[in-house]
Amino acid sequence: MRGKAGLTFGKMLENLRQKAPLIHSITNPVTVNQCANILLACGASPIMADDPMEAAQITGISDGLVLNMGTLSQRTVPSMMASGERAGQLSLPIVLDPVGVAASGFRMNTARMFLERLPLSVIRGNLSEFRALAKLSEGPADADTLTELSRGPAGVDALAADRITQENLPELLDFARAFARRTKTVSVITGAIDLVTDGGRAYCIRNGHPLMRRVTGTGCQLSALTGAFAAANPGYILEAAAAAVTAMGLAGEIAWKRLGPGEGNMTYGNYIIDAVCHLTSEDLEKGGNYEIR
Amino acid sequence: MRGKAGLTFGKMLENLRQKAPLIHSITNPVTVNQCANILLACGASPIMADDPMEAAQITGISDGLVLNMGTLSQRTVPSMMASGERAGQLSLPIVLDPVGVAASGFRMNTARMFLERLPLSVIRGNLSEFRALAKLSEGPADADTLTELSRGPAGVDALAADRITQENLPELLDFARAFARRTKTVSVITGAIDLVTDGGRAYCIRNGHPLMRRVTGTGCQLSALTGAFAAANPGYILEAAAAAVTAMGLAGEIAWKRLGPGEGNMTYGNYIIDAVCHLTSEDLEKGGNYEIR
Amino acid sequence: MRGKAGLTFGKMLENLRQKAPLIHSITNPVTVNQCANILLACGASPIMADDPMEAAQITGISDGLVLNMGTLSQRTVPSMMASGERAGQLSLPIVLDPVGVAASGFRMNTARMFLERLPLSVIRGNLSEFRALAKLSEGPADADTLTELSRGPAGVDALAADRITQENLPELLDFARAFARRTKTVSVITGAIDLVTDGGRAYCIRNGHPLMRRVTGTGCQLSALTGAFAAANPGYILEAAAAAVTAMGLAGEIAWKRLGPGEGNMTYGNYIIDAVCHLTSEDLEKGGNYEIR
Repeated sequence: MRGKAGLTFGKMLENLRQKAPLIHSITNPVTVNQCANILLACGASPIMADDPMEAAQITGISDGLVLNMGTLSQRTVPSMMASGERAGQLSLPIVLDPVGVAASGFRMNTARMFLERLPLSVIRGNLSEFRALAKLSEGPADADTLTELSRGPAGVDALAADRITQENLPELLDFARAFARRTKTVSVITGAIDLVTDGGRAYCIRNGHPLMRRVTGTGCQLSALTGAFAAANPGYILEAAAAAVTAMGLAGEIAWKRLGPGEGNMTYGNYIIDAVCHLTSEDLEKGGNYEIR
Repeated sequence: MRGKAGLTFGKMLENLRQKAPLIHSITNPVTVNQCANILLACGASPIMADDPMEAAQITGISDGLVLNMGTLSQRTVPSMMASGERAGQLSLPIVLDPVGVAASGFRMNTARMFLERLPLSVIRGNLSEFRALAKLSEGPADADTLTELSRGPAGVDALAADRITQENLPELLDFARAFARRTKTVSVITGAIDLVTDGGRAYCIRNGHPLMRRVTGTGCQLSALTGAFAAANPGYILEAAAAAVTAMGLAGEIAWKRLGPGEGNMTYGNYIIDAVCHLTSEDLEKGGNYEIR
Repeated sequence: MRGKAGLTFGKMLENLRQKAPLIHSITNPVTVNQCANILLACGASPIMADDPMEAAQITGISDGLVLNMGTLSQRTVPSMMASGERAGQLSLPIVLDPVGVAASGFRMNTARMFLERLPLSVIRGNLSEFRALAKLSEGPADADTLTELSRGPAGVDALAADRITQENLPELLDFARAFARRTKTVSVITGAIDLVTDGGRAYCIRNGHPLMRRVTGTGCQLSALTGAFAAANPGYILEAAAAAVTAMGLAGEIAWKRLGPGEGNMTYGNYIIDAVCHLTSEDLEKGGNYEIR
């Protein structure tokens, strides 16, 4: 299946491996090692600098920027802003991962600042995170809204009520399109079905495996991978994001098949990165399970 | 074997898997990924927020709190205090892991503050760490005591002189009980034999494998696991801590049996988390090797 | 093959396993877990404290110090300086890993401060990093030089132009020797061929495997390992560094042979640490592939 202008997912992976873009990630210590390794696995080169003294300068030598709000810190929010602004000046793709955004006012306020002031290319999160962001992007939130929101989500996971199913898919596509249009981003809402849209065309992707939710950081890794696909395929952000989501889901399926007796979530996490390392353009073309709506 | 009121270790693991408590850990970057993954493996949900701007708020949506002093930082000590106080207000279980506490005055002073001001539920450490804490909990330490203490332990490992053996077990049980009573905590002293006591009843647990000491963070992971068991079994903190220690030791044994030729400490560490992922209530009931004194 | 005074690489590994030195590392969150695990694998004991409140005190109970500039932070630069000065007072070996030094002015200025003020024992980096350091050690750099340097390297990897080959080896040996003499350090320049020299004798080591470059942190791990070998073999820093480089390369070869179908960079990284865990003195003696020039 093809993206616009004939740029297939397979071709986008080829571009990524050939160009080996340098991806600057400002991220959390929980999953930073896996993010670096998945970037190396897909063919990109990682750099994780997060100090305000150098963040913008590092972005200046990079090909893409990933901002991940897991374990958000006052020390690195200024780094994220400075790097985001520099990426904007250089027209580099910026991926935002609003990890557990509704869990605190600090995250909500920081996310609002990013939405208002940075030219984000892609936002990648679960449905609970998107619902919280949607409140913000609709207008100024009062204290009550913040309180209500932060009561909801169970930390960094999506609420049970926020499952993506065949039944609520049409409604969620409307939600995703409206959000993407309002924020002028490609919105990537991941769950049992993944939705990727720029407000017009939408990919509904059915790759992946439920066990991925029991490995910490598969979401963070997908955001890093999205940055790599986008940086290697500028001008095709929607398709690049869909290709990244499909690649990650496929890696989850391949890794699942490799699991032997006694192997659990930790080994599974390693196998997912291994699978990205070995993923070919042909695998990606053949294994993708998605429709365009 | 049964805890009080018929709550077996197996039943406590079932409760944990069913309730899926959200565990807030403020911990170190060395082992934070493994702590998150072992929480996911046992059925809990991890959140690792450590910024003073949000720590207490995150605790407020959580079911348990784990404070880990490895690579202690001035940035996160206020987060630990604020989260600890919030957990106290909400009667959430708090587990303290005083990693390498005697290695610096900074750690000693911070630990003293926690002991004096937070309603800790469980303290989990090795014997050298407990000996240092015991000095603190006996009364104000002068500069000489601090200097003497911090000369002792070889970093984060127990001193050779602080091995737990069949011979010194009675004496150490007295020590553990006295410490637990004085600090009003469940004390978990881990070593070749693990001691778990609330000052009255004491579990002596003989699960585990010596190679666990060559994997960084097995102690941190046990503290995280203890937080999960305690959060899922409120009112049974002593039994929950003993169940967590037994589960971790058993996972170490199962992982050891899986080790093939060429597999070393890194693979062993992955297998331990895998083993927790697959651990059943039946495994835990049958595999536990402990006595109650 | 033998180091000076009959201290073979094998004997140095034996010393390391017997003495179990405590290695204090101030390093980055990306690879800190792997650095701790490789230290445990080789027989050393890791401690990763990085707060200014305790860094120097922790160094004071340690046997060696490793300063790693990956994700350099204003928070830890003072810790690095204080620990470096303390290590100097105690004549402990100090290993500097100038990760991606040319990527920012912050890293360049910090590296200059370390070069000027700390009694570094070993510097371990790739050729691009050494070229940047050489500019600094030649004299005060102006803004233009800094700008030019930081335009160059692709983040933390060596530039394509900075490959070490059979052809440029003689020239690079001259460069390495001059650098080592000027900085009074043992210089370890790693690449397809690794160069280790104190300005006089030089080891050219051909162990290792190209896939190591696709695992994040193999360089950081080598620096940690070098600290361990140096701490266990004081007075033989040149030989200890060469032994560490050979051990790491050999571990990369052994791990490569273990790789099965579907196993990629993540599993490879785990296998490298496993291989260090199992490495014997005999392996190291027999498997080393190097010449002394």
